[in-house]
Amino acid sequence: MYGLIGKMTLASGQRTPVVSALLEGTRAMPGCLSYIVAEDPSDGDAIWVTEVWASQADHQASLALPALQAAIAKARPHITGFGQRIETTPLGGYGLAAAGRTA
Amino acid sequence: MYGLIGKMTLASGQRTPVVSALLEGTRAMPGCLSYIVAEDPSDGDAIWVTEVWASQADHQASLALPALQAAIAKARPHITGFGQRIETTPLGGYGLAAAGRTA
Repeated sequence: MYGLIGKMTLASGQRTPVVSALLEGTRAMPGCLSYIVAEDPSDGDAIWVTEVWASQADHQASLALPALQAAIAKARPHITGFGQRIETTPLGGYGLAAAGRTA
Repeated sequence: MYGLIGKMTLASGQRTPVVSALLEGTRAMPGCLSYIVAEDPSDGDAIWVTEVWASQADHQASLALPALQAAIAKARPHITGFGQRIETTPLGGYGLAAAGRTA
């Protein structure tokens, strides 16, 4: 499995529409086992996205999906910066298995 | 929802047994929507745990669960340090919903 933990900083007041666009555009991505968008309660303009993919190739392929491209196009004008970006190798856990079963 | 992203550093060579203990002890926690354990590919002794809970109270209550306490007891002797610990407010995403449906 391949995982990403990433922080994104958004233009003031743009967090809600960007989160909506991301949630909308990431519902049905082949090989995606988990894709969670969270606010940073300590930074009103930041979000964290945590992702788990069956493989790094699945993540790479997702970037070409029309729904994700549309979400990125909506979000991009409001992104002011990228913070930490951590690649991980997920080994297992709860939520993942459930996502796998329903995929 | 309440989220945690945390890094843990383990004694050399102890990553596999600690991950096994954590995965074993976190299978059925009330209010847990996602609990994923990942290796840090850039640090052979580190793991990342990402968690999503229905509420912060559910997370707090989980610490008293016998299965989690047993996992912590197995892991603790091998934990050499805690790195970053980020609290988040998850808003939604894929995997979460699936976990919710099967809980």
